[in-house]
Amino acid sequence: MFFASDNSGPVHPAILESLGRANAGYAMGYGNDPFSKSVAQKIRDTFEAPEAAVYLVPTGTAANSLILATMTKPWETVFCTPMAHINCDECNAPEFYMGGAKLTLVEARAAKMTPESLRKALDNEGNRGVHGPQRGPVSITTVTERGTIYSLEEIRAISAVTKEYGLKLHLDGARFANAMVALGATPAEMSWKAGVDAVSFGGTKNGCMGVEASVIFDPTLAWEFELRRKRAAHLFSKHRFLAAQMDAYLEGGLWTDLARAANAATGLLVAGLQGRNDIRFAFEPQANIIFFEAPRALHQRLLGAGAVYYVEDGDVTAGDPAGILTGRLVCDWSMTPEAIDQFLSLLAG
Amino acid sequence: MFFASDNSGPVHPAILESLGRANAGYAMGYGNDPFSKSVAQKIRDTFEAPEAAVYLVPTGTAANSLILATMTKPWETVFCTPMAHINCDECNAPEFYMGGAKLTLVEARAAKMTPESLRKALDNEGNRGVHGPQRGPVSITTVTERGTIYSLEEIRAISAVTKEYGLKLHLDGARFANAMVALGATPAEMSWKAGVDAVSFGGTKNGCMGVEASVIFDPTLAWEFELRRKRAAHLFSKHRFLAAQMDAYLEGGLWTDLARAANAATGLLVAGLQGRNDIRFAFEPQANIIFFEAPRALHQRLLGAGAVYYVEDGDVTAGDPAGILTGRLVCDWSMTPEAIDQFLSLLAG
Amino acid sequence: MFFASDNSGPVHPAILESLGRANAGYAMGYGNDPFSKSVAQKIRDTFEAPEAAVYLVPTGTAANSLILATMTKPWETVFCTPMAHINCDECNAPEFYMGGAKLTLVEARAAKMTPESLRKALDNEGNRGVHGPQRGPVSITTVTERGTIYSLEEIRAISAVTKEYGLKLHLDGARFANAMVALGATPAEMSWKAGVDAVSFGGTKNGCMGVEASVIFDPTLAWEFELRRKRAAHLFSKHRFLAAQMDAYLEGGLWTDLARAANAATGLLVAGLQGRNDIRFAFEPQANIIFFEAPRALHQRLLGAGAVYYVEDGDVTAGDPAGILTGRLVCDWSMTPEAIDQFLSLLAG
Amino acid sequence: MFFASDNSGPVHPAILESLGRANAGYAMGYGNDPFSKSVAQKIRDTFEAPEAAVYLVPTGTAANSLILATMTKPWETVFCTPMAHINCDECNAPEFYMGGAKLTLVEARAAKMTPESLRKALDNEGNRGVHGPQRGPVSITTVTERGTIYSLEEIRAISAVTKEYGLKLHLDGARFANAMVALGATPAEMSWKAGVDAVSFGGTKNGCMGVEASVIFDPTLAWEFELRRKRAAHLFSKHRFLAAQMDAYLEGGLWTDLARAANAATGLLVAGLQGRNDIRFAFEPQANIIFFEAPRALHQRLLGAGAVYYVEDGDVTAGDPAGILTGRLVCDWSMTPEAIDQFLSLLAG
Repeated sequence: MFFASDNSGPVHPAILESLGRANAGYAMGYGNDPFSKSVAQKIRDTFEAPEAAVYLVPTGTAANSLILATMTKPWETVFCTPMAHINCDECNAPEFYMGGAKLTLVEARAAKMTPESLRKALDNEGNRGVHGPQRGPVSITTVTERGTIYSLEEIRAISAVTKEYGLKLHLDGARFANAMVALGATPAEMSWKAGVDAVSFGGTKNGCMGVEASVIFDPTLAWEFELRRKRAAHLFSKHRFLAAQMDAYLEGGLWTDLARAANAATGLLVAGLQGRNDIRFAFEPQANIIFFEAPRALHQRLLGAGAVYYVEDGDVTAGDPAGILTGRLVCDWSMTPEAIDQFLSLLAG
Repeated sequence: MFFASDNSGPVHPAILESLGRANAGYAMGYGNDPFSKSVAQKIRDTFEAPEAAVYLVPTGTAANSLILATMTKPWETVFCTPMAHINCDECNAPEFYMGGAKLTLVEARAAKMTPESLRKALDNEGNRGVHGPQRGPVSITTVTERGTIYSLEEIRAISAVTKEYGLKLHLDGARFANAMVALGATPAEMSWKAGVDAVSFGGTKNGCMGVEASVIFDPTLAWEFELRRKRAAHLFSKHRFLAAQMDAYLEGGLWTDLARAANAATGLLVAGLQGRNDIRFAFEPQANIIFFEAPRALHQRLLGAGAVYYVEDGDVTAGDPAGILTGRLVCDWSMTPEAIDQFLSLLAG
Repeated sequence: MFFASDNSGPVHPAILESLGRANAGYAMGYGNDPFSKSVAQKIRDTFEAPEAAVYLVPTGTAANSLILATMTKPWETVFCTPMAHINCDECNAPEFYMGGAKLTLVEARAAKMTPESLRKALDNEGNRGVHGPQRGPVSITTVTERGTIYSLEEIRAISAVTKEYGLKLHLDGARFANAMVALGATPAEMSWKAGVDAVSFGGTKNGCMGVEASVIFDPTLAWEFELRRKRAAHLFSKHRFLAAQMDAYLEGGLWTDLARAANAATGLLVAGLQGRNDIRFAFEPQANIIFFEAPRALHQRLLGAGAVYYVEDGDVTAGDPAGILTGRLVCDWSMTPEAIDQFLSLLAG
Repeated sequence: MFFASDNSGPVHPAILESLGRANAGYAMGYGNDPFSKSVAQKIRDTFEAPEAAVYLVPTGTAANSLILATMTKPWETVFCTPMAHINCDECNAPEFYMGGAKLTLVEARAAKMTPESLRKALDNEGNRGVHGPQRGPVSITTVTERGTIYSLEEIRAISAVTKEYGLKLHLDGARFANAMVALGATPAEMSWKAGVDAVSFGGTKNGCMGVEASVIFDPTLAWEFELRRKRAAHLFSKHRFLAAQMDAYLEGGLWTDLARAANAATGLLVAGLQGRNDIRFAFEPQANIIFFEAPRALHQRLLGAGAVYYVEDGDVTAGDPAGILTGRLVCDWSMTPEAIDQFLSLLAG
């Protein structure tokens, strides 16, 4: 009953085994090995983007920060939602990497910006000549930090506004796979075909050990990205072990299988929760993270019985038993029906 | 015959296996797992430093840059040799992490600064009031970038000068193990007992996949280091896999065994090379990196036969066959006597 | 009829003359002249703060950014209102000086944060351990960017919350004098006695040529501030000419006279405007900046007749003549009753 | 007998008067006044560079740092001499403005780099792929920090190497006028005609109160420079008072008259010093700064009698009376023959 995060689960065995295969013999460092080069091509193929600049880094924060730094000047501001990971959970890493650029928060509905709210934020910045921050890229996350998903239409609508203002669009895809399989879309459809300029393509939350790909569709940014990655201490000497993870992740569509498994497990949870009248979903469940409001007493029973998840908005240990608190449940690829059944059976009391 | 770098060799099997063990079940992320905590303690025990702030990062550049940033103000300058890795091979990562602090180069003999050359550099900086850079920490590397080693006496002498000026001493120990076993010293003797304030304790070049420990003996810097690590995107969500590597590395003294193996292999190389009158060592061989001067024609023969190593100071493919060029040979833990024999047999022509 | 800004007016003659007096003979540079030292003392006396670290800089953005940088770590966030000058009008200078720290926007009423809105913002940040930005200083502006003034009680209430969270309070006093004379307070009452830790004490908008004082009440920050100022290229070699301005500004209470004159002129404007039913004040006029809503046609008439001021929220040249737009009027110390009469006479049509 | 620095002397009366003229009435802020615009054109005319991006800033460090930041990426390194002002006397301002780029020191003869020493430094950097710092601009100073001057041929030779490597050339011209009149060159000849890409054109040391012009010959860098200047808090609201200084400085060739006066006064000093056998010039006197080696006892006599200058390399107050120490003498535009006679008469004892 471990629903704390999809980064708490195990690495998929095929990915672990790939590390062993990569370990045979010697290989030049820093990505100059055949494995690393072939994986970059595999990612380009996956995205149907033969020219894309593709680089591996070990964390999602690195992918986000390096991409944003490559696309943003220090006197610009990045447009994102208030709950964006880059705003809340990266300890100013984007600002650090961007050399002091800032973030402008765009009003969100279900954790998604809208064309209207984006336009309003854009109109409110970058209109004071040299005095104010200049407009920089727009950054969206899908699956969002609240478990919702931008439809392809929604991405295209955001992109249309972004292009209208001459800006670039970044997609934080820490859970790219989960959103993509939920939409039934291809990687290209959910990225460059929808007007996205760069993707942080997540692996770690979906069964890898620690690898994300930075996919930038404008190849002229490649060399700058390489220098920024090295300067940020994110160029691995034994780079083949990042490549090995990503290789197994993409091989035979493993990555989509894992995302489907995580989403399906979440679907079972949702099915079990939604019939109850003491539980309400704070946001429409669409992928593998859900937020449910329930009385404190219910949270206490679940957590007391060994379920592991975060309660977001208050002290679960003390207070009115009827007080409503929001729990966050995340299923990773390895979540079993048994664990979910066990969890749901606790609801019955 | 792969002598290009000790980061080109394989991961030791025990370290790979440790990843598998760490993969059992769920664990809280970001170092909040039992494995990560116990490994930190293991490092403290190794260094006989029960209070030390100990953190894992994936690359040596990250360890160096984060430690230096934690000990340096942006208006200060770090004292290091011209060939220091932080000066030559980190693409301005230290300057980036330190927020624009600079490096002052200290004259080196056999890639080591001396108390005299350090004192001269210190006296030449930090004496112009608010106008010049202020004096910051001193950083030394051992095994040095030219394969030499600071004796314990030499470290203590550098440290004495450092302390006299009220500064801190950092040790870039990407090859800490190789130096330590060569000296027959303990980790404590080669660090805090000799006046070192912080160590980048290498694992990657000595059989790990990608892990280094930042060991800072002043525990009051711990929280700042944690924030800097997160802000630099170097806090891994699946942190247990960094811990697993370091755990196996330290377990039963594996790390010293691996370093001894690498040094011993290098010793065989040295023995085979030193009898020849067309070869000269550019620096005294002391650990697992050696630099040998030889005629271009000899390099061509070696490389042509499949030996892999860097020639540092010129174009090996074209020019006077008798021209002298310097080759760098590095042995990692996995280097076999057979490969060395094969290499040496090429010398005979 | 020049109401565009109080930085568009002339330098007061006494301040210009002071430059001439400072020009006699030679003086050591970089603030090491007797003039600069005595002026620092004069500022300390003015603030009844014998220990304060006091430094002159040429612009308000420099004063704000240097103070904030001295009080903020790069992984922290500064709390300010959305319309704060540091957020809107400094092109990311605070972020640059702070090394990538960020700003968290606090809901404002009449351009002032309240204890409640501040508390809400504080509770929403700094509660995610190492993941989120850490809480840094609070920054308020008075006279605010919308012409309102924090009462002493309001400053004390903000300060109480700030202290409760263990944070520091900065006051952007670009128009410190205008607020102070409006309140009938002393400099000490409007700063450290109300819990303010540092003040950007403006001179430029109130009759100086280009000088602001950074007043930091914690003297232990002095040396860091000096280094930051130099590193930011804001230490003047001919520093005595900054000092000369500030000396004349403070001499005999000139600075309060100038602020009273500016406020009084604004009072005449307000009196003339407020009787009209086609004009509404967007914010209560309290000092020397006012915002008035009026039909586009009226703005067109005023501007067409030669009045100079900014219309904030739309295109004044085209659109519905009855459309309501907001004009901003600022009076500096030199504004004459004649100019105001001329402006008001235009209203009559 | 005030020879401490040319930034210790008075502002020329014509420049002070110009401030008064600029003070008439109201003017739009931030350089949007007619005065500021016409002065920019005057500088372009002076340099025969109709397209140049020309901006005023208050300090030489600001001019240097902003120009270098505009021409340098954070992962690059700037090539300069060890005694360059940007290296020794700006407290890491260039590194701060450049976002952590570094400086590579080029061997100097008489404080000047040579084509050979520059080429050697260039060949030693930027040849390690992504690992090392990349090559950035070259920066020279003339009048150098040791009082010597690059001939036009020397500048052209440096520029030729710079261009060969595809780099840009910056000239720190804090004493541009003194070098130019000594060479009998035009501004264009000493800058773009010799291959210089950008000049920090000094005013402050040559009779202004505090103004320097950044002159960048590539107009496409204009907007970035404006944003960087604002972000660095160096855009003055009452910008007309920077413009007024520069206007009077250029008017009727005042700036060249002032430089000629300073150089001529220095010539008198040199003539008086060079006959003595207890005095030796450390560098050939060429402009308005000279370095003379003399016995400690002689320095003591000069300083004791009221001469003001810096002794660079030791404690003048204690030690062997016969010990040789180096004094630095600088003449500004206002230095009188009487003061020089008085100084020289002290030599006689």
